[in-house]
Amino acid sequence: MKNFEVSRATIGRIPMYLKYLKDTKHCTENISATIIAKALSLGEVQVRKDLSAVSGAGRPKTGYKICDLVSSLENFLKLDQNNNVVIVGAGKLGRALLDYTGFYEYGLDIVAAFDKNVTKLEKSNSNKPIYSVDYLEEFLSKNTIKIGIIAVPADCAQEVCDKLVLCGVRAIMCFAQCSLNVPKTVNVQYENIALSLAYLNKKN
Amino acid sequence: MKNFEVSRATIGRIPMYLKYLKDTKHCTENISATIIAKALSLGEVQVRKDLSAVSGAGRPKTGYKICDLVSSLENFLKLDQNNNVVIVGAGKLGRALLDYTGFYEYGLDIVAAFDKNVTKLEKSNSNKPIYSVDYLEEFLSKNTIKIGIIAVPADCAQEVCDKLVLCGVRAIMCFAQCSLNVPKTVNVQYENIALSLAYLNKKN
Repeated sequence: MKNFEVSRATIGRIPMYLKYLKDTKHCTENISATIIAKALSLGEVQVRKDLSAVSGAGRPKTGYKICDLVSSLENFLKLDQNNNVVIVGAGKLGRALLDYTGFYEYGLDIVAAFDKNVTKLEKSNSNKPIYSVDYLEEFLSKNTIKIGIIAVPADCAQEVCDKLVLCGVRAIMCFAQCSLNVPKTVNVQYENIALSLAYLNKKN
Repeated sequence: MKNFEVSRATIGRIPMYLKYLKDTKHCTENISATIIAKALSLGEVQVRKDLSAVSGAGRPKTGYKICDLVSSLENFLKLDQNNNVVIVGAGKLGRALLDYTGFYEYGLDIVAAFDKNVTKLEKSNSNKPIYSVDYLEEFLSKNTIKIGIIAVPADCAQEVCDKLVLCGVRAIMCFAQCSLNVPKTVNVQYENIALSLAYLNKKN
């Protein structure tokens, strides 16, 4: 796996490549970018670029060894690692995310949610635990969590963020409309659906 | 209002400027970028750049006339126009969006949701209507809708999209993980929260 920056668009296509390579019965050990591109209705140049960013270039004439390519793509998505995620804030959005199955294809596992209005353990529709937020620190000390999703109102977001950071979470996705103060070692990504919609509205 | 492309980051700050200009009691008719920047803890260069993109440059020494600046910012967000939005798909995500209040500050009004599992009119927690999807076309013919949000599973997304486009919707935000076929006159924006999370995970 190469370490240079890979675009969001490329990352978005990796699950598609993986699905094709693993689900389709291939008659040969090797596969070419041309065949993959054709099967997935993608441009050949794009497929070559994506795969070379993630796995290195295929061999002339023979292309990629399928099993190696699958390993490279899986390693890239860190499917072999713990990619556990917690959500703080189990309102409608938090619960929607908790039960959303689309995270698995990127190797991400949302393991639990926490909410201040939950006093005793609840279960989501897909049987995932929703704990009281009072249990957050204890949970984080017992489990290795890679990403924390903040889905609480803006006025509680910093407090939640501080707890996550203090307990060792180094990547935070924030749905609250606020600006979080975090140490430089912590990555924060803001998701603002209202802003996306406003942006779409401006383009029209 | 200038017509060149304004960045997403600038659009994201407009509600903050508007709120400050409208909510704060100002002793003067005019206000400078310096004062705005200080009040909102923003860089002065950034404020000047934002305001000049939306409203033109302030006058030397006097700055901006507050009432004109408010009008420019409101016009920019099209607050004076109909910015009605419908959601198709009233699962957890659809309902979370329907009741989310953060859209108003961008002048966007989510007026109704539609779902195939809804047979008679339901109301959301914030009292917004959720209709059967069979009523979608009739609703669109009676109401001017600027944006359609697709929050149905991927395998129904194209069908929903076709209905929206046929009924005159020209901007679509799609939460389904698929690629939509639309005429060139229609803008589609894809929202993929799983991909955002995967991207955050790769950065760490």
